Amino acid sequence: MSHDSSKVLGRISGPGDLKQLSPADRVQLAREIRERICRVVSRNGGHFGSNMGVVELTIALHTVFESPLDKIVWDVSHQCYPHKLLTGRGEVFDSLRTYEGMSGFCHKDESEHDTAYAGHAGTATSIALGIASGRAALGADRHVVSVVGDASIVTGMTLEALNHAGWIGERMIVVLNDNGMSISYPVGGLHKALTAVRGTGTPESNPYRPRGPQDLSPDLAGLDVGGFFERLGLDYVGPVDGHDTEALIAALEQVKGRGGPTLLHVHTRKGHGWEPAIEDPITWHAAKGFWREPDDDRAQAAPLAPNAPRRPSWTQAFSRALIDAAGEDPRVVAITAAMPGGTGLDAFDKQFPDRCYDVGICEQHATGFASGLRLAGLKPVLAIYSTFLQRGYDQVVHDLAIQGNPAVLAMDRGGLVGDDGVTHQGLFDIAYLRCIPDLVLASPQDEPELRAMLRWALRGERIVGLRWPRDTVPEPLEREAPPIELGKGRVVRGGEGDAAFFAYGAMVQHALEASHLLSHRGLATSVVNARFAKPIDVELLVQQLERHEVVITVEDHAEEGGFGSACAQAVLARRPDLVGRLRIAGVPDQFVHHGARPLQLRDAGLDAAGLALRVETALRASAPARLRSVALLSSPAG
Amino acid sequence: MSHDSSKVLGRISGPGDLKQLSPADRVQLAREIRERICRVVSRNGGHFGSNMGVVELTIALHTVFESPLDKIVWDVSHQCYPHKLLTGRGEVFDSLRTYEGMSGFCHKDESEHDTAYAGHAGTATSIALGIASGRAALGADRHVVSVVGDASIVTGMTLEALNHAGWIGERMIVVLNDNGMSISYPVGGLHKALTAVRGTGTPESNPYRPRGPQDLSPDLAGLDVGGFFERLGLDYVGPVDGHDTEALIAALEQVKGRGGPTLLHVHTRKGHGWEPAIEDPITWHAAKGFWREPDDDRAQAAPLAPNAPRRPSWTQAFSRALIDAAGEDPRVVAITAAMPGGTGLDAFDKQFPDRCYDVGICEQHATGFASGLRLAGLKPVLAIYSTFLQRGYDQVVHDLAIQGNPAVLAMDRGGLVGDDGVTHQGLFDIAYLRCIPDLVLASPQDEPELRAMLRWALRGERIVGLRWPRDTVPEPLEREAPPIELGKGRVVRGGEGDAAFFAYGAMVQHALEASHLLSHRGLATSVVNARFAKPIDVELLVQQLERHEVVITVEDHAEEGGFGSACAQAVLARRPDLVGRLRIAGVPDQFVHHGARPLQLRDAGLDAAGLALRVETALRASAPARLRSVALLSSPAG
Repeated sequence: MSHDSSKVLGRISGPGDLKQLSPADRVQLAREIRERICRVVSRNGGHFGSNMGVVELTIALHTVFESPLDKIVWDVSHQCYPHKLLTGRGEVFDSLRTYEGMSGFCHKDESEHDTAYAGHAGTATSIALGIASGRAALGADRHVVSVVGDASIVTGMTLEALNHAGWIGERMIVVLNDNGMSISYPVGGLHKALTAVRGTGTPESNPYRPRGPQDLSPDLAGLDVGGFFERLGLDYVGPVDGHDTEALIAALEQVKGRGGPTLLHVHTRKGHGWEPAIEDPITWHAAKGFWREPDDDRAQAAPLAPNAPRRPSWTQAFSRALIDAAGEDPRVVAITAAMPGGTGLDAFDKQFPDRCYDVGICEQHATGFASGLRLAGLKPVLAIYSTFLQRGYDQVVHDLAIQGNPAVLAMDRGGLVGDDGVTHQGLFDIAYLRCIPDLVLASPQDEPELRAMLRWALRGERIVGLRWPRDTVPEPLEREAPPIELGKGRVVRGGEGDAAFFAYGAMVQHALEASHLLSHRGLATSVVNARFAKPIDVELLVQQLERHEVVITVEDHAEEGGFGSACAQAVLARRPDLVGRLRIAGVPDQFVHHGARPLQLRDAGLDAAGLALRVETALRASAPARLRSVALLSSPAG
Repeated sequence: MSHDSSKVLGRISGPGDLKQLSPADRVQLAREIRERICRVVSRNGGHFGSNMGVVELTIALHTVFESPLDKIVWDVSHQCYPHKLLTGRGEVFDSLRTYEGMSGFCHKDESEHDTAYAGHAGTATSIALGIASGRAALGADRHVVSVVGDASIVTGMTLEALNHAGWIGERMIVVLNDNGMSISYPVGGLHKALTAVRGTGTPESNPYRPRGPQDLSPDLAGLDVGGFFERLGLDYVGPVDGHDTEALIAALEQVKGRGGPTLLHVHTRKGHGWEPAIEDPITWHAAKGFWREPDDDRAQAAPLAPNAPRRPSWTQAFSRALIDAAGEDPRVVAITAAMPGGTGLDAFDKQFPDRCYDVGICEQHATGFASGLRLAGLKPVLAIYSTFLQRGYDQVVHDLAIQGNPAVLAMDRGGLVGDDGVTHQGLFDIAYLRCIPDLVLASPQDEPELRAMLRWALRGERIVGLRWPRDTVPEPLEREAPPIELGKGRVVRGGEGDAAFFAYGAMVQHALEASHLLSHRGLATSVVNARFAKPIDVELLVQQLERHEVVITVEDHAEEGGFGSACAQAVLARRPDLVGRLRIAGVPDQFVHHGARPLQLRDAGLDAAGLALRVETALRASAPARLRSVALLSSPAG
């Protein structure tokens, strides 16, 4: 896009520049913001529909309020691109979601206008209420606004915050950005009430397909949804057309003057301004490769061409394995907290619609619900991201483990997640789960093993936490995985030599690569597929320690309290004389921001080269003579 | 009480025996149940007001439904004593809350009528909805009922479950047991709406004191609270007088016939039938020592005589320390999730009512709210039980740590909690927190150190998790604690010898006792107060390993992933040659049920005798000659 087409956006270096715009300027600005988002997201990938839907709302918010003195807190923040463009980040917007470039979410280090990092749903209203209460206590008189989607408004955390806001009566504004959608279709009783409003409140009807055992209840059509929020103690204003900037400005000016907590209900359309996204909002929640420059003679709206991976993703592998397992056992049911696509349950849902439960962005309830399904005699599989299971942590302890109610926790995005960034990293699950008694943790090295492990876990004797990363599955080692046995690992290469890798899950492939690298350098290394992080196969681990100078545990997880830590603890209890030969390779104790997964693995020293270097460093310390005897060494970094 | 006075209760060996009772029998039965609860709770301690309030409701539920075919799920289950008395446990009820006796909560091993263990609030409706959905999927046609208090109904988990129930439309009944109280006074906007109903719906007014910046909003008086639940998609019936058994039976029969999810609103009074408890419901939430036998000539309602501890509790020590710190720094504010008494914030609230936030049973929001308070420039202290912080785990990661928003997590009940039982154990906090980057974990050995640590943590540079157990503070080692330095521990006894204890927090006292025991047996042991679990003082630990045959880490926490595990990991990274001298003493990897804390410490081998035995066992293995040279040995258990 040439600069002259950006005649308004180019003049905006911060929210202050918005104040002088005319209504016509604002229409033009909205057009320019949408074009910019299309171009960059088409190239870099990223959230699309949610950002296209809030262009007018963002312009209105920054026109009415004075950020950063007034605080705007974006929930989840996958709708923050217009905000980024209006808060001085137009120049660097092309680097969106690239390694060391701009984050796809709000990011405090990028701008004083980003009140909080965000990535998990439902947090904004709690944070905003805290700011409002704290400022009131300190006598500061500024506005605080949270912007929350209709899928996020029903998370337990937001409902808790609304109930508290209605109680203490602090002045704050909650903007309900109601686009009738979650990442997928929304669920929940309240959505029926929201949909009932939608029929009369907005000029355009939303391509919203209510989905569930009941269609829109006629009873609810007569109930104003505002009554829900009023009973929590908030004032309710709306609904307002979220694509009419002038109406939004007027509404925000109105609620700005109120003394207590107010909810402003805004109707938006996901993907507004880009027809294909309106027609298929799920595919276009995140998108890539659809935009061509105006002077490009290919069609502007080229069909989506996602980077077709050479191999299927772990998500797809799980999806297929679950469908097969469910085909064999009618008691197998699956639960997602509003992530049917991300977890692979979308395909399962097509096959077994009556056995798939989407509970909304409600991980606490999802986990308790799994406990109840089990009590009814079913075999629940909770398909969830590692990072989002943190929301259901207490329920894993209290409602599954203490109850002795077996379930499968199928954790996707276990490990370094790449571009999704710091809030989505799945680096803590082993640490927070392995302290729970009676719980089993396992992770497959490849797709055949995933299938075997899932089937094994579905025998339903224990709570089993399975994990895999956001990645493609490696070439399988064997066509069919040897039988799974509780707490037993397998030697997949060697068995004695200079050093061994004791690797967990998807890290087996990187350990194997490292082992090949090292063999070229004259060092004999073994590779063990640990299979289990709880219980640790301590017999096998001790055997490896006896047969090698050094054993390096390998995990795509925080080193603090993770798999390697569990190995050290297990060996210390069994054979303290050998524990000194152990080394732990995992993610160092710091937050990891966005970037491609291979780069993140490299930075953590967990790719093949990094693992090979770790072996050499360890041997240099413990068996220097052995190292001198081999021909080749990498650069002396130890 | 002689047996003849128990003429109805004595005939009830299970819910089936209730069906034939006449209304007059039921009145008599309620009286007998109350008398029995008074006698046993007066002697054994336990929840009082909540149980006295649900006597008629429990009789009605077991009259109308057929447990265990129909499922009744008691939320929190601190209202389950009448249920226990009606489900065949009258004989053993005298052993309530005693070591190896009857649990004070629902307990699956005790009875098939106990659907789930419970202890955390807000879980029942998720579990009940899971059972209802699972049974529907399997074609089973039975009723499922959750019984939820008005304080629990606003937990995020319950609101998530209600929203899901309203969506899928599965048949189930939620009984809202509205007594206008939490453990303390309830909070939240919805409570204003509930209170508005109370004015007209019940024959007696509740001694309910709405408390917060706003009194009962006149706006809400015109809103029927049922509209809240109706907008979530549930039918609403009520309110019904919860002390009129016949009215309850009629209402339950009515909602039993409905096809979808129904909320039955029941008004009860905490402590009904015992006047002092109605007048002071907070004190009487749990009570002891108030009942005398009828032939006892002392007054029946003797004043409460709690077992006055020789020394103050950790809770009291924290409360005083916080009040003092807040007196010095006006930015210090405190948050509780409905536990002002349990956490010691009640006294703080009296002193600084404008700086104390009770957000209700909403740990997710409490943690996010703390983040917002910090962003506003305050210094939030989240006073919370270790086990309940599990509910706010994701928020610690996402809304505090990733944001870099310092706060103090003041964890009470960190460790073995005694009589409160399996759901309340605080055994996982080190494991689930130490994997989080930039977070500091510390624990004081005595009251002066608690004061110093709290003041240090309130400098506000880091997120600091402090923990102390449900116990009395030990005699302080020094009048004033030496200055706190990040990641630095202190030698409190010895410094070289046969073995050292590297103890965390309140375990220092037990290590000191063990050290004295061992010195009588001729063994020289040192004791280190580690102070920090993150970062570990690895220099000091290595020094101790160099100067002793064996170093035993001591913690009142699960061994898996806890403090000792962190020590092993730190030494392995620094001095692998020494890590073999380390031993870990913590709570073994299994759930711990109720019983007095000293017994639980003994069973875990964490009392002085157990720790001394661990030293001898370790030395027997690593330095047998040294052991043979000392005069006295305990029984050879190694």
